[in-house]
Amino acid sequence: MADNQSLESLVQALRCLPGVGVKSAQRMAFHLLQHDRPGAQRLAQALVQACEQVRHCSLCHTFSEQEVCATCADPRRDQSLLCVVETPADQAALERTGAYRGLFFVLMGRLSPLDGVGPGDIGLQRLFERIEAPDSPVRELILATNFTAEGETTAHVIAQALKQRGLKVTRLARGVPVGSELEYVDLGTIAHALVDRR
Amino acid sequence: MADNQSLESLVQALRCLPGVGVKSAQRMAFHLLQHDRPGAQRLAQALVQACEQVRHCSLCHTFSEQEVCATCADPRRDQSLLCVVETPADQAALERTGAYRGLFFVLMGRLSPLDGVGPGDIGLQRLFERIEAPDSPVRELILATNFTAEGETTAHVIAQALKQRGLKVTRLARGVPVGSELEYVDLGTIAHALVDRR
Ligand SMILES: [Zn+2]
Ligand SMILES: [Zn+2]
Repeated sequence: MADNQSLESLVQALRCLPGVGVKSAQRMAFHLLQHDRPGAQRLAQALVQACEQVRHCSLCHTFSEQEVCATCADPRRDQSLLCVVETPADQAALERTGAYRGLFFVLMGRLSPLDGVGPGDIGLQRLFERIEAPDSPVRELILATNFTAEGETTAHVIAQALKQRGLKVTRLARGVPVGSELEYVDLGTIAHALVDRR
Repeated sequence: MADNQSLESLVQALRCLPGVGVKSAQRMAFHLLQHDRPGAQRLAQALVQACEQVRHCSLCHTFSEQEVCATCADPRRDQSLLCVVETPADQAALERTGAYRGLFFVLMGRLSPLDGVGPGDIGLQRLFERIEAPDSPVRELILATNFTAEGETTAHVIAQALKQRGLKVTRLARGVPVGSELEYVDLGTIAHALVDRR
């Protein structure tokens, strides 16, 4: 593909996708250009549109196209419960159980010192500000970070920081298998873990 | 991500990539929007540019930004040798050997009846037209399709079609890979190497 600058650029650009190396990128570029140019065009438009439209909810920090996301804006939600999760996918997993009617805070990551991810890289400061606001209705913080080493560390750091502030801090019960990621756990297990939170 | 149409559209659009399911697409969208928006913008541009610029070489059928690709346009190439490969990546592998100075024809696929890929879906007709042109300088056709079931079928079909036309048709030798120990080579390969011994 030596004299083919556009193709080379596409292969390079595809490598920004997580888990995609040179070989995968070449296969993807080949597939799109040979078999699915309409798909490639749609993808280009979707990328531009998402980069323009998607920002973070000013309350829960998750992706949102509005200043405040639909979940945070829902008046039927229990404002006294705040569930802390790592990603939107984790929030979605909890929502699918139908067992939780409080609000969320989405860290958009987890503490991982080995990867250079510190408190400033995830939404910790925003979380503390939200909880400590004088008019905060939050009475219980449910730590629903993943039951991985990084998720446990993140939960531990948050719990320590909030220890002396009279706020009830709970963790999802260990019905969730250790070492697994919420996104992949069956709904019943997550529902039980919510009920048994401690 | 329910109220987030742009994000949902991006996840859907990413699924046009081969091997990317819902979970992978969600991870990719999260990564791009949270950690690499410049990468997403570059990818969008590269997709549009490639769709606009990349067409097929009118001689060898590979991707090219010109009417005739650089390889086909190279006067130092031996016009009497034509090597048939499945993809540009296969051509690149042969080029890297430095052992071939003839021309190529890139099928951009291989026959795969089970997947509904027939002669009309790969460049077979163009190949035959090129070889059968009255002024064609091609004296030997080297079949370098992959040594898979589909690649062998494709080679077989081409060989059959050209049987009675006085053209020399050869196939890459099957054999033991250079640098490998017989003990660890699969039996089929050894058997073929025995049959094809020279
Ligand atoms: Zn929100
Ligand atoms: Zn060409």
